[in-house]
Amino acid sequence: MEERIYNFSAGPATLPLPALEAARKDLLNYQGIGMSVLEIRHRSQVFAEIIEKAQANLRHLLNVPDHYQILFFQGGASLQFSMVAMNFLRGSGKSADYILTGSWGNKAIKEAKKEGTVRVVWDGKEGNYHRIPEPSELDFYPDAAYVHATPNETIQGVEFSSPPDTGDVPLVCDMSSDFLSCPIDVEKYGIIYAGAQKNAGPAGVTLVILREDLLDRIPENLPSLLDYRTMVKGKSLYNTPPVFAIYFVMLVTRWLRDEIGGLEKMAVLNEGKAKTLYDVIDSSDGFYRGHAEPGSRSNMNVTWRLPSENLEKEFVRRAKEKGLDGLKGHRSVGGIRASIYNAMPVSGVESLREFMLEFRSENGS
Amino acid sequence: MEERIYNFSAGPATLPLPALEAARKDLLNYQGIGMSVLEIRHRSQVFAEIIEKAQANLRHLLNVPDHYQILFFQGGASLQFSMVAMNFLRGSGKSADYILTGSWGNKAIKEAKKEGTVRVVWDGKEGNYHRIPEPSELDFYPDAAYVHATPNETIQGVEFSSPPDTGDVPLVCDMSSDFLSCPIDVEKYGIIYAGAQKNAGPAGVTLVILREDLLDRIPENLPSLLDYRTMVKGKSLYNTPPVFAIYFVMLVTRWLRDEIGGLEKMAVLNEGKAKTLYDVIDSSDGFYRGHAEPGSRSNMNVTWRLPSENLEKEFVRRAKEKGLDGLKGHRSVGGIRASIYNAMPVSGVESLREFMLEFRSENGS
Repeated sequence: MEERIYNFSAGPATLPLPALEAARKDLLNYQGIGMSVLEIRHRSQVFAEIIEKAQANLRHLLNVPDHYQILFFQGGASLQFSMVAMNFLRGSGKSADYILTGSWGNKAIKEAKKEGTVRVVWDGKEGNYHRIPEPSELDFYPDAAYVHATPNETIQGVEFSSPPDTGDVPLVCDMSSDFLSCPIDVEKYGIIYAGAQKNAGPAGVTLVILREDLLDRIPENLPSLLDYRTMVKGKSLYNTPPVFAIYFVMLVTRWLRDEIGGLEKMAVLNEGKAKTLYDVIDSSDGFYRGHAEPGSRSNMNVTWRLPSENLEKEFVRRAKEKGLDGLKGHRSVGGIRASIYNAMPVSGVESLREFMLEFRSENGS
Repeated sequence: MEERIYNFSAGPATLPLPALEAARKDLLNYQGIGMSVLEIRHRSQVFAEIIEKAQANLRHLLNVPDHYQILFFQGGASLQFSMVAMNFLRGSGKSADYILTGSWGNKAIKEAKKEGTVRVVWDGKEGNYHRIPEPSELDFYPDAAYVHATPNETIQGVEFSSPPDTGDVPLVCDMSSDFLSCPIDVEKYGIIYAGAQKNAGPAGVTLVILREDLLDRIPENLPSLLDYRTMVKGKSLYNTPPVFAIYFVMLVTRWLRDEIGGLEKMAVLNEGKAKTLYDVIDSSDGFYRGHAEPGSRSNMNVTWRLPSENLEKEFVRRAKEKGLDGLKGHRSVGGIRASIYNAMPVSGVESLREFMLEFRSENGS
């Protein structure tokens, strides 16, 4: 087998090698039961153990209290944009407060507006979403249905260092790109949702952590599959779930727990990786210019520009030749984006650092 | 590696061994690109080729005309129950006609009623859904929004031998459990949808074949992800799709095309497999009693009872010891169900036949 490269894509993203190796081992015959993990039925004892292990790993890693449900959906964060608003805004007689710090927040707002009244309490559009609001800039309706935020914006590379204080109003967070990257205090949130394909597994499953008392607020007559109560009642098995993707979440969370040693340790690694790249940017005499303001910088998606678009193209091309793939920035920010999720090893970031130094010394003025 | 068993589960179900072997080969390093097929980004050229191949294989196998779109969704048939009604019943000023031949049709009706007026044009409840209606029993509203049918009911094991003639009213079919099992005339359908996890791949992706002119009937302001036009416009890549499941559909359809030789050949194999089991049932002097009437029998899900529930339990237990797994019938029908989808080899059905003969000779009166 040829060597694996370093994949800096924003998602689907690189996965832990031990999880991939375990999946390959189970692919024709899961644990000796005579069938592939792709073939096991979702109501079998074998799958019950897999999904329970995945939930137990998540509960352990994030220290999820008992009055929070851990659920598995399909449809990604994009379907959650609608589900959150259908379940908690539609017919509530209230408005919802949205903090807008980047592209994904914008999409969440677009869907919520179809279901009810949305109030954008802060909009980072000025400056192309290069920073997170100060607490003093945020003023929530005490009677809002919920406050929605995107703690890490994958495209712009801005990240909250701590969740906004919303008082008694439930905080709903699209945590797709920083889920499991560091410890959080789950009790500060009403709902956390995350597409798995950055830090938790492959594309095809969405993780939802939901405070149980919120279930009472859901209106009747929603499509069954889009009513959070259906998945609570059916224990994420109302209909056929994405068995393989959930199995893979179990493998990734097992790796996080047993091989990394938990989220405190993961956070230290992630901060170190991010610092490595930001240090190169900050000491480049303006050759590399970070998109996010220093206090708002993401530990997951590092975004920066070069002196010209031609140099940016050349950077991406040459990096790819060196086995550093997926570095092209999103068109709405331009430049370079290095996604350095949990599964990106320190060695990958070190390789990128060396390449950045080399590229600057060859192309810097 | 221990031997693989024969898996008669209704879904997730057995998969073609060559597809599993190909997936295992690509699991750490897809075609030498240095990353797993689970890690490739959905907007990469590599994935564009995979999804285009999957679509091309489906178009070839089913002879799908150019004015039909082939789309990939998440959420299974259960989400399609709602989507069909949200897109084509809600706000249409029309009612929709549903043919009810089993458990899945019932669920489709439950969701459609939330969106508009449903008329159940035929209900097989009497006799616990043991037969398909005669054409003379069906009378459709000429102005219905659509007619919905479930050509194969997975739980009851009843199957239409040809689609009902709905004239100018679009026929919408939940083909989850007979999709790709035999050739069909796609032009007879307005929309075909199918969860992949029976005949087309693993759980986690839903296939939709949709006649393009129907897109004009969709109301505004649906959640983006639940509006068929979003997926048409985004070429099934509006948001992150279930990359691995789509890749696996590509492998399964390639196997169908290249190794089986197309759906005519697949249909011959499937009819042969079904006949093998129904012959054992019919020549058992009433020891095995088929649930479905002979003219309504499914080639995919063969359902039958034994003289007592104790014998049924014993049958399932002993079969499992012989490597014949997943034969317990659904609780709403009871008894035994053998799901013999495309990927179930003739040798598996032969083994089951031998076991049935042996079990009867040991336990028959």
